[in-house]
Amino acid sequence: MTTLAYCQELDVNDALRPLKDQFSLPPGVIYLDGNSLGVLPKATAARVAEVVTQEWGVGLIRSWNTAGWFAMPQKIGNKIAKLIGANAGEVVATDTTSINLYKVLSAALNIAAADSPTRKLIVSERSNFPTDLYIAEALCQERGYTLKLVESDDKSDEIAASLTADVAILMLTHVNYRTGAMHDMAAVTQAAHTAGILTVWDLAHSAGAVHVDLTASKADFSIGCGYKYLNGGPGAPAFVWVNPKHAGRFWQPLAGWWGHATPFDFTPDYRPAPGVNRYLCGTQPIINMAALDCGLEVYMAAEPFGGMAALRVKSLALTDLFIALVEERCAGFGIGLATPRAHAHRGSQVCLTREHGAGLEGGSGAFAIVQALIARGVIGDYRAGDGKTHKDIMRFGFTPLYIGFENVWHAVEHLRQVLVSEEWKRPEFNQKHAVT
Amino acid sequence: MTTLAYCQELDVNDALRPLKDQFSLPPGVIYLDGNSLGVLPKATAARVAEVVTQEWGVGLIRSWNTAGWFAMPQKIGNKIAKLIGANAGEVVATDTTSINLYKVLSAALNIAAADSPTRKLIVSERSNFPTDLYIAEALCQERGYTLKLVESDDKSDEIAASLTADVAILMLTHVNYRTGAMHDMAAVTQAAHTAGILTVWDLAHSAGAVHVDLTASKADFSIGCGYKYLNGGPGAPAFVWVNPKHAGRFWQPLAGWWGHATPFDFTPDYRPAPGVNRYLCGTQPIINMAALDCGLEVYMAAEPFGGMAALRVKSLALTDLFIALVEERCAGFGIGLATPRAHAHRGSQVCLTREHGAGLEGGSGAFAIVQALIARGVIGDYRAGDGKTHKDIMRFGFTPLYIGFENVWHAVEHLRQVLVSEEWKRPEFNQKHAVT
Repeated sequence: MTTLAYCQELDVNDALRPLKDQFSLPPGVIYLDGNSLGVLPKATAARVAEVVTQEWGVGLIRSWNTAGWFAMPQKIGNKIAKLIGANAGEVVATDTTSINLYKVLSAALNIAAADSPTRKLIVSERSNFPTDLYIAEALCQERGYTLKLVESDDKSDEIAASLTADVAILMLTHVNYRTGAMHDMAAVTQAAHTAGILTVWDLAHSAGAVHVDLTASKADFSIGCGYKYLNGGPGAPAFVWVNPKHAGRFWQPLAGWWGHATPFDFTPDYRPAPGVNRYLCGTQPIINMAALDCGLEVYMAAEPFGGMAALRVKSLALTDLFIALVEERCAGFGIGLATPRAHAHRGSQVCLTREHGAGLEGGSGAFAIVQALIARGVIGDYRAGDGKTHKDIMRFGFTPLYIGFENVWHAVEHLRQVLVSEEWKRPEFNQKHAVT
Repeated sequence: MTTLAYCQELDVNDALRPLKDQFSLPPGVIYLDGNSLGVLPKATAARVAEVVTQEWGVGLIRSWNTAGWFAMPQKIGNKIAKLIGANAGEVVATDTTSINLYKVLSAALNIAAADSPTRKLIVSERSNFPTDLYIAEALCQERGYTLKLVESDDKSDEIAASLTADVAILMLTHVNYRTGAMHDMAAVTQAAHTAGILTVWDLAHSAGAVHVDLTASKADFSIGCGYKYLNGGPGAPAFVWVNPKHAGRFWQPLAGWWGHATPFDFTPDYRPAPGVNRYLCGTQPIINMAALDCGLEVYMAAEPFGGMAALRVKSLALTDLFIALVEERCAGFGIGLATPRAHAHRGSQVCLTREHGAGLEGGSGAFAIVQALIARGVIGDYRAGDGKTHKDIMRFGFTPLYIGFENVWHAVEHLRQVLVSEEWKRPEFNQKHAVT
């Protein structure tokens, strides 16, 4: 059996442990929801205060130049680039994930329309994060394309079979938000390209969480999120990457002045900036942008400790430990594993199900168990199933920057106690409200 | 002659003067650029710090519900509604002006395509803020429409003549960013409607600056900016209003999960939220959003002082005084007025030109004069002309919340000294850099 002492020993031997000191973690909380909203870095509050009181308050309009506000999308983009296998100048931080997806999908459709006009399908997974599907649905309606949704899980993978001659774009999220299952980006991209299909990758649950190499994978377009593993704060700007071979070919329809080649000439006609800068649109939220910069600085500080490669090793050790402890200590309560065991197919989260019919009454109980854990300070989240293909999910994200092995032990011990005591059946844990 | 003592007397008698104490103005600065980036309200720094350290740092993911983050677009939208003649529930604060324009213009095109499919033109002014034209150009290209640009200034107004049977949408900025000239929203909208044309109004230089009544004007769609007169801080979220008669008819293509009727059902298919909420898309920058809320609170605090009506009276008194002082004290230096004298046609800014051929060598000098003024702490901004129709502009915004009459006197005195001493000819004031 895995012991608390063993977990403590793992922490003692963890070279990445000092990185935890860069974060402001509330006492009494084991935070396993960095996949939804990352933790506050200690440096952020002072930096945000500086932006507000000095750069805005004193510098006022001058700070667009003197404080470098204009250059933030590119400066921050260059830091993100290091985490996703992109080169400097290929990434900009801007707008939201949904909006950036609209931009790259629009550009990809422009390329497809020019190069292979008979291809009229966009393929994605039914289990993709819904906003990706909504945006694709909207663009399909605008452009006369059809969104084809396929199943992809441990039971069936219809993606390979879906790469037919009528498909223009394969749009996937690299790490699934519900299950934590991860695609092989290089292999899937190669299969798509062999079939003449462009790829769009959503890195919302990948950037800062797993090894990503957009360049080596030869991906075509990519977007991702700033407020999850990148610790950029609530609603942090998202990011966009375009393969340099595509970047100059078309402009995207959210063609605002920040994406103009010379915005301060104020010309009435649009002339797109070179490269990825044309994926900018309007004025960016500078305070949130500065907070995102602080989140990325933690990753820069992790470079002497081995950077993303070392973080990935620790992430897998944390999720391995969590799975092992749940199976050792929470057996007999109908808890199942929705996340792949194979390292190559696992992101930085572990998703548990709770089976009906395991001697238990009244729904899966997954929602109430998560609420009971939150009340104990173990913060994960819940994603409802569809009553058919997808089970209710208890989702636990493991951010190696600030989660330790003893945290994992205690999280599972709380889960065990919630199950043994049946405290999750209390009425207060069974009242639904909006969740993120 | 208008004296300093007279200006000081105006301040003494100004009932709105206490509102200035709500702002953190740097010493030695007369800030006449609130039309580009508003001033920091005193309450903002503490509120932003609370969002960062408490709501994010301690509340973490729970704050989406417990701190009301989810409801911010609507809550802030309701405050903006009071300033623009809209009703509660009709406005959301979200994304950027450019992106919101894309949304409403898309929706307006959907309506036009359904109701009057033979109309294939969008009409706007050549002197409109360029990002509006770029977004319209992009949508025209996507949808098979043509953007027709007309002239509209003190010499010729081609708008009325442009409202022909082939026009689907008239897209105007209410107060021109270069000249401060203001359209009669009700009259123009009525003329457009009589001709079967929908109207889209950009309120970037109107909201919080002049009287706006979208409801009484029967406007169709409107958008606006949070970081100018609303004092929301650099890159504050913008806003969007849709006439309730249109709000439920179509969805807009930036159809992300925040605009879904039930986002946390995570359904694979998009079902738009009722009303204006479908104009939301992705996760919003919460820190900047909280700062915008503080900016609007100042307007709520201005209600006992007479609110927007009283602010408008003071704004006109300030711009009247500025014009009078410039004409009295800066005569003989080729300074011209680009802003209409008639109150009904003037926003909250005054734009000056500097004529070539007024006995002066080397370009208009407008850029260098603005730089020299900024060096003296009088912050306005410069907008280049096109060498043809549009002259170089020296732009001075007057925000009645924090600008007083003595400020106006001193601003003009600095301008007089810059002109008399010819200090604007110094090399350091003639080096171009990016301006906002």
